Amino acid sequence: MAEFMTEEKQRTPGAQPLDGHEAAVILERARASVDPELRAAIDSLPGSMRRIALYHFGWEHADGTPAAGNAGKAIRPALVLTAAAALGGPGAREAAGRAAAAVELVHNFTLLHDDVMDRDTTRRHRPTAWTVFGDADAILAGDALQALALGLLAEDLHPASGPAAARLAACVVELCAGQHADTEMERRGPGEITLDEALTMAEAKTGALLGCACALGALYAGASDEDVEALDAFGREAGLAFQLIDDVIGIWGDPSRTGKPVGADLVARKKSLPVVAALTSGTPAAAELAELYEVPYGKGDEEQLVRTALAVERAGGRDWAQVQAADRMARAMQKLARAVPDPEAAGGLLALAEFVTRRTS
Amino acid sequence: MAEFMTEEKQRTPGAQPLDGHEAAVILERARASVDPELRAAIDSLPGSMRRIALYHFGWEHADGTPAAGNAGKAIRPALVLTAAAALGGPGAREAAGRAAAAVELVHNFTLLHDDVMDRDTTRRHRPTAWTVFGDADAILAGDALQALALGLLAEDLHPASGPAAARLAACVVELCAGQHADTEMERRGPGEITLDEALTMAEAKTGALLGCACALGALYAGASDEDVEALDAFGREAGLAFQLIDDVIGIWGDPSRTGKPVGADLVARKKSLPVVAALTSGTPAAAELAELYEVPYGKGDEEQLVRTALAVERAGGRDWAQVQAADRMARAMQKLARAVPDPEAAGGLLALAEFVTRRTS
Repeated sequence: MAEFMTEEKQRTPGAQPLDGHEAAVILERARASVDPELRAAIDSLPGSMRRIALYHFGWEHADGTPAAGNAGKAIRPALVLTAAAALGGPGAREAAGRAAAAVELVHNFTLLHDDVMDRDTTRRHRPTAWTVFGDADAILAGDALQALALGLLAEDLHPASGPAAARLAACVVELCAGQHADTEMERRGPGEITLDEALTMAEAKTGALLGCACALGALYAGASDEDVEALDAFGREAGLAFQLIDDVIGIWGDPSRTGKPVGADLVARKKSLPVVAALTSGTPAAAELAELYEVPYGKGDEEQLVRTALAVERAGGRDWAQVQAADRMARAMQKLARAVPDPEAAGGLLALAEFVTRRTS
Repeated sequence: MAEFMTEEKQRTPGAQPLDGHEAAVILERARASVDPELRAAIDSLPGSMRRIALYHFGWEHADGTPAAGNAGKAIRPALVLTAAAALGGPGAREAAGRAAAAVELVHNFTLLHDDVMDRDTTRRHRPTAWTVFGDADAILAGDALQALALGLLAEDLHPASGPAAARLAACVVELCAGQHADTEMERRGPGEITLDEALTMAEAKTGALLGCACALGALYAGASDEDVEALDAFGREAGLAFQLIDDVIGIWGDPSRTGKPVGADLVARKKSLPVVAALTSGTPAAAELAELYEVPYGKGDEEQLVRTALAVERAGGRDWAQVQAADRMARAMQKLARAVPDPEAAGGLLALAEFVTRRTS
């Protein structure tokens, strides 16, 4: 009887009714599913590494006392679990728990390392790990999280675990190349980057892991190679949309929601996608923006900050980013529809992809 | 007929006659076996990461032109391959090629990161990667090598590849904890470290990966859990012997052979094993050494350098390290004899372990 119930559920994936806040419910469920796996993995670390990881995930304060926890929105684990459910039903979702934790561990390993390289001092409203524990420990904790992630899959006896680990490892390489391209582009002058380069970098840095998350879910659902690739493409396109919106927020966003001050990307002279689109627009505002970007931001110069944001906007950077994001979302939907034609089964992934773009409104 | 020959060889592993330079022959064979796997793995990297890896392995100069190559002594791949042959014959050695490359990739990932953290400027007689490409790129290349290593095993269809990947991932975590302990101990005063702490750190930092290399070879030979653990213990003990000898070389060694200047560890006030043994000896020389170590080395003060080395020696640090190394080697032999009772089959691993200690003479 229990087996029949499971079979029944597998035939009607995503059939549980969800209210209007579908994405929020999915994210909450994903967080609830993945947190025990994550905690168990992190608790297995030696004390020195565990301490840094617990701080980074928001589960401990710097002094080692327990904290409420703010480990982010769990978008990547939610994509793994929801993709597994969409293609294989609740049984596949259940089986993909370790894969979801592995993707989240990889994401957090890259955050730890990126913060060191970018000298970012704030993450999720708290001081970054390297500012608290030093560069060396933040690098080591990141290394350990990567090993934990791939180790989780290696210990998983599911037949998909090997291909999933190979795919996740290849994704890490792409993430590294993306971060390299990012830091390398930041060293160049404002007129020396093409929009294609910036988009390729964003796909490697952000799209790759979201695509990999969806592909891992498909693998754990036993999907065909074609469907695995379609899910990867869905995640990549949605990931690029996510990055475009994130870049818009990095210039015009609400700091109480993002944990970053308004205009942070402009203050840091970051060549985010709307900025590169503006710089390469050939408009008078592009020239003004290039001139502003040639010199470092004068601390406290609010008026200059407003002028810079306006230059990006007048050069069309904001509109371009929003149109691009919508376009990427449309492509994502196409890929999804091909792999999961049943709208009910695809509903969860659609809701997550829409959640990503809703962040602007 | 061909199959019979293979079977025959598997029953008499290590039966090929090797001359007195047995270890050198084994290391050369290991380098020849592992290099094509390593090159293929590194060639699969995106250009930005490949460039740094090729430089680090000595296969390219900093400007990207081909170099003769000096990728180290291949001790770890040799341990994987020789352990596989000892327990499973030439067929197992053949099957363990990817595992050997994976262990070497992990070793080199840790070297890239350790050099960044320790600010070491020379490795294998050449400027370290971070001095050439910057911290960020050296960190990213290390991250990519770890992913390549675990990815190689994930793609390997051998039944041992899953357990091998899980073991290698766990080993990476131990290596990170070891490097953390090392940097943390370096920040303490000369009188604030116990010999036990220093030995535990050395086991995690050096013994763990040599043990893992041997265990992976045993796994690919289809060995029992007990034999896998015995091979791990053999490698760990030999690894500690290796570290003890390496620390002796770091004080009294020949720089033309090690690529480090004489007394490099003393100049850096490094709390290597002989130094900690000397500091905790309770001798008058220990007090003199502690006093010398309290202040940074005065650049070019050759006389002070000689006095420091002499203090370590008079406090018994050098003798202790050499006796400890011999003791660890004896324990290693015991572990090996238990797992591989046939002296002929164990010959290769014995030769490698002896090679490690011969480095002093």
